Amino acid sequence: MTPIRVVAFGGGHGLSASLRALRHCVPGLDLDITAVVTVGDDGGSSGRLRAERGGLPPGDLRQALVALSGDHPATRRSAALFQHRFAAATPAPTPGSPAGGGVGDPLVGHAVGNLLLHGLTELLGDPVAALDHAGAMLGAVGRVLPMSRQPVGIEAQVRGADPARPDDVRTLRGQHQVAITSGIVESLRLTPAAPAACAEAVTAVRAADWLIFGPGSWYTSVLPHLLVPGLADAIVSSPARRLVTLNLVAEKETSGLSLPDHLDTLRRYLPELKVDMVLADSTAVGDPAAVERAAESLGARLVLAPVAVTDGTPRHDPAALGAALVPVLGADR
Amino acid sequence: MTPIRVVAFGGGHGLSASLRALRHCVPGLDLDITAVVTVGDDGGSSGRLRAERGGLPPGDLRQALVALSGDHPATRRSAALFQHRFAAATPAPTPGSPAGGGVGDPLVGHAVGNLLLHGLTELLGDPVAALDHAGAMLGAVGRVLPMSRQPVGIEAQVRGADPARPDDVRTLRGQHQVAITSGIVESLRLTPAAPAACAEAVTAVRAADWLIFGPGSWYTSVLPHLLVPGLADAIVSSPARRLVTLNLVAEKETSGLSLPDHLDTLRRYLPELKVDMVLADSTAVGDPAAVERAAESLGARLVLAPVAVTDGTPRHDPAALGAALVPVLGADR
Repeated sequence: MTPIRVVAFGGGHGLSASLRALRHCVPGLDLDITAVVTVGDDGGSSGRLRAERGGLPPGDLRQALVALSGDHPATRRSAALFQHRFAAATPAPTPGSPAGGGVGDPLVGHAVGNLLLHGLTELLGDPVAALDHAGAMLGAVGRVLPMSRQPVGIEAQVRGADPARPDDVRTLRGQHQVAITSGIVESLRLTPAAPAACAEAVTAVRAADWLIFGPGSWYTSVLPHLLVPGLADAIVSSPARRLVTLNLVAEKETSGLSLPDHLDTLRRYLPELKVDMVLADSTAVGDPAAVERAAESLGARLVLAPVAVTDGTPRHDPAALGAALVPVLGADR
Repeated sequence: MTPIRVVAFGGGHGLSASLRALRHCVPGLDLDITAVVTVGDDGGSSGRLRAERGGLPPGDLRQALVALSGDHPATRRSAALFQHRFAAATPAPTPGSPAGGGVGDPLVGHAVGNLLLHGLTELLGDPVAALDHAGAMLGAVGRVLPMSRQPVGIEAQVRGADPARPDDVRTLRGQHQVAITSGIVESLRLTPAAPAACAEAVTAVRAADWLIFGPGSWYTSVLPHLLVPGLADAIVSSPARRLVTLNLVAEKETSGLSLPDHLDTLRRYLPELKVDMVLADSTAVGDPAAVERAAESLGARLVLAPVAVTDGTPRHDPAALGAALVPVLGADR
């Protein structure tokens, strides 16, 4: 039997949760996993690299690689290295050396894996080749691809971005600004407006059995995929079934969005999108009937399952989410 | 039959040549290779890391790891990544992002492997653990150890360090200054004067069948090992046989030293040192009788072989050096 080909879309933590959940399916299901990752990040270590040196922001790509990294102790240690951020260092004076004493600290806060991905891309001349090699270094159990080989900007028209002027609509530029706004996102666009899709991602989507959207920051990690024309076309025309995993709680950028609103935005930004399943946490769902109606308007059935961690924090539990995914992905096999 | 345990001492390019030569012995001989590396570098990427963040200068350790890295295409690519130096980048403007445009470039010139070794040491808390993991990442066919877990300074009294005052003796501080001087090194010391030897290096020396010194920058890569008391004790008391591979040409720091002088300095800095074999290039040796006398004064037999590359540049050819080492290391087996 051929493996079930799954493509998971997202950005940072939400995509990691989705990928870790898929790994939990693997004892029961034979999965071929591809992660397709947004490339709009402009904050933190990724933002510094992108601003100072160009190229794709590596942070979300790194997170996806680590989520898929192998279970061998050596690959676990390599994954920890990818995640390690250079600490503020106070060098000991080195007697006898003219170089002794601290003179600056440009590495602080960079994740080692971000520098490694940037260096690999320089060396190999292509981000996909770099990701494939980094995946091999980590013994990854799937492939990580960017949604585009070119970095994108994320812009939003936001009402009340300035809390003192709640009715004013302002343009916020950059994923970081959009992600942290407390205003209401009225519209979202990428710059350039129509970036070229990563060809390997398009191929994976066309060949997939399942496409999985979310969880994740809706405006900055989930919806951007639908704004890449080549990817959107592939998503709409793929024979794959489509699953949306809803968030557990509103993030800052979506504080005005209910769960039904989350589903409605998918249709707003990609009207042709049909969805087969919507997966939501039984407790977080709030008004199940409203979510069910929104799911049905996308053509989807709502599946409720306990998928959050049990300590009360709004995080997906990979084992629980994986357990909920097994009957969905394994249906008709 | 147990493998022949070989410990090779050195620093940068010379140690790499020695290690690559040892790899060429492997089809014929079963070798267990350990590299013991100086930790005095204060130039370039290593010097910047050491000055800005402390810890061991990683460059020479990285070179030794790469020299021992595996032949699989994936480990070759990882080795190329370790060696890759971040280029000067001109980032494309990223429209829609406030971070667009170059604002500085602190990574330029750093080797990726240097940053990776520094990050691994931070993560694992120990440079030997970091080197062992990096070796695993590279599929290394031997182990790389620092001569000391603490970085050292290298200082030399140099006559004529200022060419305008050829008779003046000045103190030069730092490996880089000593390595590039055109003056005559009159004496050499480490700071601290008696650094603690790396325990794993001492263990390897005590268990070795062969200890190999050189080729390499004599004052900054070869002799420093003899100035670490714990390592010098282990070298003198080890049951191993000892081989010195002579340089092909005088480097800047040894421009006043003939090949016999090179051998004499070993005895000057470690009077108890006995040597079994001295290996020199048949062409580069100049006056074989003088080199033979210097070798005999250390208790050694001189072996001449064609070990240089044939294009006339003063570099050891790993295959030729390996071919010369096989009968030496394999004797009495």
